[in-house]
Amino acid sequence: MTFRKANKNDLASIIELFADDALGKTREQFKTPLPESYIKAFEIINADKNQELMVVENNVSEVIATFQLTFIQYMNYCGGLRAQVESVQVRKDQRGLGVGKKIFEWAISRSKEKKAHILQLTSDKKRPKAIEFYKKLGFIDSHEGMKLHLK
Amino acid sequence: MTFRKANKNDLASIIELFADDALGKTREQFKTPLPESYIKAFEIINADKNQELMVVENNVSEVIATFQLTFIQYMNYCGGLRAQVESVQVRKDQRGLGVGKKIFEWAISRSKEKKAHILQLTSDKKRPKAIEFYKKLGFIDSHEGMKLHLK
Repeated sequence: MTFRKANKNDLASIIELFADDALGKTREQFKTPLPESYIKAFEIINADKNQELMVVENNVSEVIATFQLTFIQYMNYCGGLRAQVESVQVRKDQRGLGVGKKIFEWAISRSKEKKAHILQLTSDKKRPKAIEFYKKLGFIDSHEGMKLHLK
Repeated sequence: MTFRKANKNDLASIIELFADDALGKTREQFKTPLPESYIKAFEIINADKNQELMVVENNVSEVIATFQLTFIQYMNYCGGLRAQVESVQVRKDQRGLGVGKKIFEWAISRSKEKKAHILQLTSDKKRPKAIEFYKKLGFIDSHEGMKLHLK
């Protein structure tokens, strides 16, 4: 298993992973050519030193998972830096094989390297298995994750 | 009530607000001179175009509230931009007067201007009143907000 920053050639694989998901399929558009909005988003992420869009490859160089790590400087906690994980997606045929665990080992290690004091994420309550997985990793569900969709 | 970006001269007022709070007092250090870590954090935030550390002033130019808005580009939702609010703090003697509501009107308007599709936050489950307040504003508690404190 290899971890590396995503490049433009990975975008179709990443969106394919997003779209092959119970929640993702209602909100993503995986087609050829890929909608321009994904390419623009990638360019913004890729140019931002606080953002790390990652892919995980298997030993035949297929993208089997993706996730995005964002570092956010806050004033609170005496001016602490936080790491935030979003868009964790593992290819369906690769689930239950420990890929998620490896992703979080990587994310924790990377967050410590950047001197973040908290690694945080929000997980949809419609994904109880994911929430259990995060708890096993040591995450505490101390907060409500609240979303307001803007029109 | 005036909304403006915080500057270096506001830092003592901001940290004083953070420290005068049941949860904040356990993790902040409000003293003179202010710990260097706050000043460093402010400089990083202030130099980042995705970050807006705000103060709210009353009509005698006192800082009566603060909050931080962060814009995060993601790949999901067809490459959507999100706005995230953190560190909302209203001076104790100003609570119940509609300051929080004004803050969120401002944050929603600013998020729409930046074309964010979601405004999100996490709220500590130890703050049930805050959670009720966010629900009244239209926020949905669809997610678990999970935190891992790193050593």
